[in-house]
Amino acid sequence: MTSAPAEYLEGRRLSLSRTLKAQGLDALVVSSRPNIAYLTGFFGSAGMLLATADGLLLLSDSRYGEALHDIARRVPGVAVVVTAPGSGSAEESLVEGVAALAPSRVGFESANLTVRQHVDLADRLAAAGCGAALVPTEGVVETLRAVKDAWEVHKLREAGRRLSDVAKCIIPNALAGLAERDLAARIEWELRQKGFDKPAFDTIVASGPNAALPHHRAGARRLADGDLVVIDFGGMLDGYAVDMTRTVTVGAPDARQRACWLAVASAQRAAFAAARVGMDVEDVDAAARDALAAAGMAEAFGHGLGHGLGLEVHERPRLSRRRPGASEGPLAAGMVFTLEPGVYFPGWGGVRIEDDVLATDAGPEWLTEPVAEVRAT
Amino acid sequence: MTSAPAEYLEGRRLSLSRTLKAQGLDALVVSSRPNIAYLTGFFGSAGMLLATADGLLLLSDSRYGEALHDIARRVPGVAVVVTAPGSGSAEESLVEGVAALAPSRVGFESANLTVRQHVDLADRLAAAGCGAALVPTEGVVETLRAVKDAWEVHKLREAGRRLSDVAKCIIPNALAGLAERDLAARIEWELRQKGFDKPAFDTIVASGPNAALPHHRAGARRLADGDLVVIDFGGMLDGYAVDMTRTVTVGAPDARQRACWLAVASAQRAAFAAARVGMDVEDVDAAARDALAAAGMAEAFGHGLGHGLGLEVHERPRLSRRRPGASEGPLAAGMVFTLEPGVYFPGWGGVRIEDDVLATDAGPEWLTEPVAEVRAT
Repeated sequence: MTSAPAEYLEGRRLSLSRTLKAQGLDALVVSSRPNIAYLTGFFGSAGMLLATADGLLLLSDSRYGEALHDIARRVPGVAVVVTAPGSGSAEESLVEGVAALAPSRVGFESANLTVRQHVDLADRLAAAGCGAALVPTEGVVETLRAVKDAWEVHKLREAGRRLSDVAKCIIPNALAGLAERDLAARIEWELRQKGFDKPAFDTIVASGPNAALPHHRAGARRLADGDLVVIDFGGMLDGYAVDMTRTVTVGAPDARQRACWLAVASAQRAAFAAARVGMDVEDVDAAARDALAAAGMAEAFGHGLGHGLGLEVHERPRLSRRRPGASEGPLAAGMVFTLEPGVYFPGWGGVRIEDDVLATDAGPEWLTEPVAEVRAT
Repeated sequence: MTSAPAEYLEGRRLSLSRTLKAQGLDALVVSSRPNIAYLTGFFGSAGMLLATADGLLLLSDSRYGEALHDIARRVPGVAVVVTAPGSGSAEESLVEGVAALAPSRVGFESANLTVRQHVDLADRLAAAGCGAALVPTEGVVETLRAVKDAWEVHKLREAGRRLSDVAKCIIPNALAGLAERDLAARIEWELRQKGFDKPAFDTIVASGPNAALPHHRAGARRLADGDLVVIDFGGMLDGYAVDMTRTVTVGAPDARQRACWLAVASAQRAAFAAARVGMDVEDVDAAARDALAAAGMAEAFGHGLGHGLGLEVHERPRLSRRRPGASEGPLAAGMVFTLEPGVYFPGWGGVRIEDDVLATDAGPEWLTEPVAEVRAT
C-alpha cells in the first residue's frame, strides 16, 4: 500500500487541529479505520488514534510494529505505541495518553464507537483519575475527507483511468451463455490485471429481469440474447475506491431498451453539466431527475444520484433528493463523487450508468471515461 | 443466496427465546448483520430485528421488500415491516414494536450498537412513553451460532470440500516468476469457478521474507526459486465462510524449510487429535504449542491456534493460549473452527498450515482435506 507523502498527512493533521480548536475539544479519540488511515497513512485492521492540537498518537499491536515505526520516523507530529495483540493494552495506553493531557473535553466518534467501547473508555478514564467529559462528535474527520488533496486527486485520476480500461473487457456481443457470476469473475480478474488491490465491493451483474433489482449481486442466471445487463464494479487502488456501472444489451437493443438507455445517459450528462462548484448537491440530483421526468421516467429512478468516493466507496457528499430542512451543502472544488442515474421496471429490467467526477473551479472533470451519448447500449 | 430451511430458522428462534427468558429480558434488539441472517435468513445490508419470547419482527427498507415478504410467508414466527430507505422509519417502527410490548427490560448488543444508535433508540423509546430499561448484552446470539445445526454442518462440509478443490490449483513448480497478486487473482478466479459467492477475505500470498509477516496481503513481489510461500484463502458459500492456508516452496525445499513445514504439520495433527468434545479450547491450542516446543519452535508461534467459522470468518470459539481467569470453555459437538499453527522468522520467512474441523461426539472431522504429513512442502 503506497500511502500519502508526509507533507500531505501533515496538512490533514493541521486541518483537524483547527477543527478541534473550533469545536472546543482538547482531544479526539479516532476509532474509524478510514479516518485513521486518512490522518496517518496506517491501514492496519486494528488501531486507535488520539488527536490533539499538538499531534497524533497512533496505537496498534505488534503485528504492525514495523509499519508503526516507519510512520513515526516519516510523518512529523505522529507518535506511536506498539501494544501486545488483543490484550487491552492499546486501550490502556490510549487512556494514559488522554490522562496526560489533563483535558476537560475529549471527543469521540459516536457513529463508530460501540456502546461497549464507550463504556470501557469511560471506565478506564475514571480509573485513571481523569475527569474529562466524553463529547459525542459526528463527521469531524469525514468532513475533511470530503475535499480531496492533490495527492488524493492524483490517485483517483489514475484509478479512474484504470477502471475505464477494465470496462473495455465487457464485450456485449460475446456475453450470451455466460453466467452472471462468470462475468463478475472475469471483471474481478481484469481489475487485478490493471493493478487494483481488490474489488471495491461485490461486483454486480444483473441480467434480464434481475436488472430491475438494485440490490441484486451476481448469480447463476445465464445471459441470453436480448437481455439488458447492468454491470456495476469498482476497484481499490492504494486504499482509494473508484466505481463504475455500464448497462449493455446482449445482441441488438429493442426500442424500449434503447429509449431507457438514452434517457439515463442524458440524465447523467445533465447532472454532469450541473455539477459546478457552489451548487447544492441536491440540485445536481434534481438535474438528473428532471431529465428523466422529461422522458416520462421520473418514477423509475428510485435511488439517489450518487455518493462521494475516497477511502470508502460510499462517503461524503451524498447526492440525493432534497429533504425538508436538510442539505448536504454545496459542491466544493476537490470533491469526488459518482453520477449514477438509473431506471428500473419490475419484471422487465433496468438501466444504470455510473461514472466518477471531480469538482474543480474550472468545472466538472470526468475521472472515468463516460459513455458516448450517441451509442444506445 | 440459499438460506436455511424454515424449520432450522424456527429452531434457532426457539433457542434464542429460551435464552431471553433465562436472562430476564422481555426483548432483544438485534443489530448485528450476521446475527440477523442467522435468525431470519435475511442477508440484506440494512435492517434491524426485534426478538421477543413470541417471535421476531424484521425491519428493512423497500429495496428488500420482496425478500422480506418471502421470509414472512415462509418462516413461522417472523413478522416483517418494509420501510422507506434511509428515512429513520425503520427505527420508528422498531420502537413502536418495542412499546407495544410494554416491556421492563430490553436488551441490545453492546458490541455492535454504536453510541449514536443507542442514543437514538433511547430517545425514541422515551418519546413513545416506553419506560423500559435498555440492558447491554454480549454474545447472546453469537453463543448460539457457535454450535452449528445440521443444515449449517451440511453447508460447511460442502464448502470445505470445494475449498480443497481450489487448493489444487496451486502447483508449486509452476509458481516461479508469478507476482504474489497474480497468484491471489488466480485463486480468487478458481473460488468463483468452484461456485463460491466471493472470497471470504483478501487472499494472502506472502513469499520469501514476506512469509514472516502474518499481516502481509499480496503484493508485487515475484515468486522465485527457493521461496517459501504462505497462501491463505477462503470462500463464502451461501453466506458461510471456510478458510485454508497452504505453505509451499518454489522448487525443492532446503533442510530448514523442510523442518519447519514438518513441525507445523505435526503441530496441526496434534491439535486435531486433541480436538475432542469436552476439551477446553485452550488445551487444543496447547497441544499444538507443545508439539512446536518439542521441535524447538515455541517462540516462533506468535498467534492463536484458530477461530470459529460460520456466517463470519472469525467467530466463536476462539482457540488461543490460556489466560489467567478466562476460558472460552469446552468444545461442543457442532463447533466448526480452523486449526492453523504457524512459525515465523523475521527476515527468513514462515510456514502456516490451516484446515477446517468439525467437532463431533465421535471425534474431530476434517472439513478440508488435510496435508499429507509425509510431504515436506
